Amino acid sequence: MVPPLRYEDGALLVLDQRLLPAEVSWLRCESAAQVAEAIRTLAVRGAPAIGLAAAHGLALGMREPSADLEAVAALLLATRPTAVNLRWALERGRAAWRAARDDGRAGADTLLELARQLERDQLDADRRLSELGAACLPGAARVLTHCNTGPLATGGYGTAVGVLRAAHAGGRLRQAWVSETRPLLQGARLTAWELAHEGIPFRVVTDASAGALMARGAVDAVVVGADRVARNGDVANKIGTYPLAVLARRHELPFYVAAPVSTLDPGTASGDQIPIEERDAGEVLELFGRRVAPEGAGAYNAAFDVTPAELVSAVFTEAGVLEPPYERSIAGAVGG
Amino acid sequence: MVPPLRYEDGALLVLDQRLLPAEVSWLRCESAAQVAEAIRTLAVRGAPAIGLAAAHGLALGMREPSADLEAVAALLLATRPTAVNLRWALERGRAAWRAARDDGRAGADTLLELARQLERDQLDADRRLSELGAACLPGAARVLTHCNTGPLATGGYGTAVGVLRAAHAGGRLRQAWVSETRPLLQGARLTAWELAHEGIPFRVVTDASAGALMARGAVDAVVVGADRVARNGDVANKIGTYPLAVLARRHELPFYVAAPVSTLDPGTASGDQIPIEERDAGEVLELFGRRVAPEGAGAYNAAFDVTPAELVSAVFTEAGVLEPPYERSIAGAVGG
Repeated sequence: MVPPLRYEDGALLVLDQRLLPAEVSWLRCESAAQVAEAIRTLAVRGAPAIGLAAAHGLALGMREPSADLEAVAALLLATRPTAVNLRWALERGRAAWRAARDDGRAGADTLLELARQLERDQLDADRRLSELGAACLPGAARVLTHCNTGPLATGGYGTAVGVLRAAHAGGRLRQAWVSETRPLLQGARLTAWELAHEGIPFRVVTDASAGALMARGAVDAVVVGADRVARNGDVANKIGTYPLAVLARRHELPFYVAAPVSTLDPGTASGDQIPIEERDAGEVLELFGRRVAPEGAGAYNAAFDVTPAELVSAVFTEAGVLEPPYERSIAGAVGG
Repeated sequence: MVPPLRYEDGALLVLDQRLLPAEVSWLRCESAAQVAEAIRTLAVRGAPAIGLAAAHGLALGMREPSADLEAVAALLLATRPTAVNLRWALERGRAAWRAARDDGRAGADTLLELARQLERDQLDADRRLSELGAACLPGAARVLTHCNTGPLATGGYGTAVGVLRAAHAGGRLRQAWVSETRPLLQGARLTAWELAHEGIPFRVVTDASAGALMARGAVDAVVVGADRVARNGDVANKIGTYPLAVLARRHELPFYVAAPVSTLDPGTASGDQIPIEERDAGEVLELFGRRVAPEGAGAYNAAFDVTPAELVSAVFTEAGVLEPPYERSIAGAVGG
């Protein structure tokens, strides 16, 4: 698998995911501003991966002798509002910086070491939650997933795609259904690319196809990632996730969320408190730079929706499989 | 509004809807085979409009002195399996042909006159069902619709789009939400084009956005068209319709179907008897001829799904607003 981030020769190389799968191209980021731009423009995306990118961005930014920790962190935090991993990684960075300064160590070196440690931690967390999640699936499972939650999205083994990988490795996966994930097609472009690389059988469907697949009995479970899980278990994730959860409930199918503990946000009481990013209408109205809708047409382009906790069968984390009541299980996972 | 079909100088001119809204281009069809190709390749689409095209195709085909009625009808019927209007129009044509022969009239002329009569009937039916439907909407309604059901799809005033037009004309429409309708984007391309032409306020959304819009309280009703309504009220329509009905139920919103009586099929007992067209995977995996998914990826591309009658609040037809129990109300509409 190709990783989304590589640190080399004093720079963060960011795989430009906007060009995949047609082109494998790396952006060289030597400053926090360049990393922020890569996050903002979705060259790197996926809640855990943007957390790791932000950690590297902080390290790069603080190499400047005159740099201000809070200003650099604010620059990175302002890139995208919904994924809590961004804030989480920056808070880890702030704490590491202060600890280093208290000890008289070089802050920038400490931040780079932290970013590398977070990458190793992410891989461990992904593997663990993927194993736990795969064990929850029925045998010969046909699993529907949404958006991209593989190594490209996490910098590790993947979350929902990690569950598919672990299930495949354990002989428990019959087939993945990959919803294409409009407007930016992370399913068709990125998840398909990753699953093909792993030899996992899959087929792409439009986002509107899930109901028909479930009605035909062609889906055994839904597994998705998350950008933020509130204290009560409400889940913000790529738009289109909530309809999958509603359909899964109607068809009495399990709806699972796979997310590292860094995606849990006990500081947010419920889903209606989660800021939902609205992106440019052009993402909907144009494809490959070509206008689809007539001139003058407008679009509403929210990047995420919120799935209420009552529709979530379980949350797979590296701290265990969290089940309702989520207030308690999430508090235990974060505190543990 | 630009009509989808025009009969001129002995030929059927078919507006090539695949090129809209970027280009207004007409295909000249002088034979049944050319009309069949226009239907099969979606140059003309929409259940009522393909019925009208087939009626014209039959008339064109039977101008050939040696033509066989059943062979020409079979050629046209084989183009697309789901919309029942195709079969309905061809049955009307067969009956007209036989009646003309019995009376010693020229069969081909009779078929052309029938096609023109069906066009007038469609306009009348659309207007009537649209008025009836608009009267069912709340005031200042924000209505979500799917795919394209305007004049381009019916050759008349439109069905679900007709309801929007009538509601707008009556001051009852605040805004339309237009789901883009992957894979062929009939919502973003065609419905947006028609609504813009009419000055109806609208915004385009991805198909996966409906849940988020409903959760925000931004939708008052869903109105869609139909390709076939079974005897029990189950509705086959563009894929993605069924999820909208499930979401509408969850949010306690009315889910309306707008369809002429020619779309009702009392000969089909229920939705699971309706043949669902599966189209080429390339429609999902490529956009504007550019590959989106990696080479080797497959797709499942069903063109329609089935919404169970229990999720349908009412069916707007020119014979009245049909309500449950649908076995009775549909039988009444078809027989009346």
